[in-house]
This record gives sequence, structure tokens and C-alpha cells, in this order.
Amino acid sequence: MKIYLAGPDVFLPDAIEIGRRKVEICARHGLTGLYPLDNVVDLSASDASLAIFKANEAMMDAADAIIANLTPFRGPSADAGTVYELGYAAGRGKFCLAYSNDPTVYRDRVARMCDVTTSDGRLIDPEGLTVEDFGWPDNLMMIHALDLHGCPLVTPRQLSADIWHDLTAFEACVELTVDHVKGKSS
Amino acid sequence: MKIYLAGPDVFLPDAIEIGRRKVEICARHGLTGLYPLDNVVDLSASDASLAIFKANEAMMDAADAIIANLTPFRGPSADAGTVYELGYAAGRGKFCLAYSNDPTVYRDRVARMCDVTTSDGRLIDPEGLTVEDFGWPDNLMMIHALDLHGCPLVTPRQLSADIWHDLTAFEACVELTVDHVKGKSS
Repeated sequence: MKIYLAGPDVFLPDAIEIGRRKVEICARHGLTGLYPLDNVVDLSASDASLAIFKANEAMMDAADAIIANLTPFRGPSADAGTVYELGYAAGRGKFCLAYSNDPTVYRDRVARMCDVTTSDGRLIDPEGLTVEDFGWPDNLMMIHALDLHGCPLVTPRQLSADIWHDLTAFEACVELTVDHVKGKSS
Repeated sequence: MKIYLAGPDVFLPDAIEIGRRKVEICARHGLTGLYPLDNVVDLSASDASLAIFKANEAMMDAADAIIANLTPFRGPSADAGTVYELGYAAGRGKFCLAYSNDPTVYRDRVARMCDVTTSDGRLIDPEGLTVEDFGWPDNLMMIHALDLHGCPLVTPRQLSADIWHDLTAFEACVELTVDHVKGKSS
């Protein structure tokens, strides 16, 4: 079984090493991890970003499942590229899993960034935009996509000490994938 | 032709009115706009967020196209729920369009939020994470998904005076959809 490994991990200084560790964890559980940086792309080419997109999409199409790293990235929500990929995978009928190394509820994360107040029964930010308040760690679309198209979001009990390198929740996703494969074959 | 109207518009104080205006613009061009808040959901129910998800997904499945509002939301990137929906629509083979009322390049938007420096030839944020720098207004996955699965991202020349209510770029997306339908039928 092939699993597409989505996440802002590709933006880390040690992006290659994190990918190697993730692929190795998959292999230990009998699964094949497909990591975006394993695609060979000429970054000096004028159409490098298009080449990256095409290679990532082909990798997702070739995969049976996705494990997305939804740890918040430059704001209260997950990385946009990763969220796009989770949506694409769900749309293509892939088995969808994800983790976030920050279990904080979305509302509380927004409240750390800015003033959150109540107006006409709505929780709002300083721009007057509603702050989603269903008790989930991120937007309901990702949360329930996971519930209905794969497995519920995996989070640690507490914020990971090293949110970008702790792969405990990632490995839990790999184990859930193995359980899914066993369940299907039994 | 049915178009799913994705965007953080649903979080505005006048969310219903914005939806009404978008549906009206679609109708003026002979198209049917499907707006998430047109779904009837009991928000006091314990499973309200799941009901919203299911209704939105059913609406997307019923649509032929999506127009996503990718105007940056609580950070340098678009709203996560909207990005998920764009990915889902692309995965389901829908015709994909989007606009952003802020044409600023992603790198510059991050640089307004935090210090962006250079390390080993990479542009990085204070956490050491790479800042994507391909000259696009947001993550390359959404940008090229639009190029390859619909129409390129529509942006105004300058930041809209009212980024949450200016529907000029939205209407341009509607017109592109009409051109697409005409192109197919001619």
C-alpha cells in the first residue's frame, strides 16, 4: 500500500531527513511512503513550481492513502498546500489520515493571536469575522473529511515538545492505516 | 451549470447578504450558484459541524464547478476550509476557479508578519521554515491546480478597498465560467 506523505515538513531545514524518517516508519509497518521531495525537480527552471505541482499530483494519484501533517503553520490553521492535498485525496477517494502535533482547540489558538469577542451570539475576531467554535483543532471541513473518508485526526494529549520533529502522532496514523488494510483483507 | 461558492464569506457578519449577491451575479450570467449557507442546518444540534460538512460535500458533489474565494484569511494564506474544498473539487474533476482580492506575492505577505531572512540560499521565517518564493500570491498547489483544472487565479491589480465585499474578481470568475461553457458547446 502506497501512502502520500503530505505536510509542511518539506519546508523544514532538515526536510530530506524528516522524509527519510517517515518513509522508514512506513517501511517498518510494511507500507510504502511517497514523499514529495523524492520527486526530482530542477528548481532553477522557470517552471519549477509547475513541475513540483505535477509531480506531487502524480504521486497522489499513484497513492492509496494520504497522511497529512495538519500541525498549524504560520497562523491558526494547517499549511494551505497540505490542506489542498488532503481535499484532493478525499475527492479522489483515497483513504485519508492526518495528525496535528498541536491539540489546541481552534478558537483558543485564534484567541492567542488576537482579541476574540462575542457579538450577536457569534464569536468574532477584530475584523468581525466569525471564529469557528465547534471544539475542533481546525476547520470542520478537514476534521469531518477525516472522520468520513478515513480516520479521525490524531493529536497528542499535549503540545509536542518539538512540533516539527515529533513523529509519534505520525506513526499512530501509519498504524491506523495498517489496521485498515488488515480490516479490509480479513 | 451549477457552481459551488466556496469562501470565508460564510464567516462575515453579512454572510447571508454576500451569498445572495453572489448567487444573483451567477443568475445574471445564466448560472446557478450554490452557497453553503443555503443548506439548512440546526446549529444547536450536537452534531451541527458534521451536518454542515455533509451538506457542503453534497453541494460540491452536485456542482459542475467551484469558485473559491482565496483572499488571505487569518494569516498569509487562504482559509483552510476553502482550500480543502478547492482540493476536493479538483479531485472530483470539477471545473476549478478562484480569486483573491489581495494580489500581494506570498513572500511579501509573510515578510509583513515576521522577519524573513536568507539561510543557505533558502528564504526562511523565524522558525527556520522555508518561505515559498515562486512569485505567486499563495501556495503553488492551489495556483497550479487552478491553471491545470480550470482557470488561473483571478486577482485585482491592487488590493481591493474592501477585500470582503468587493465582488469584481468574483464576477470575472463567473464570466470565465460562461466562456468555458460556451467553448465546450461551440
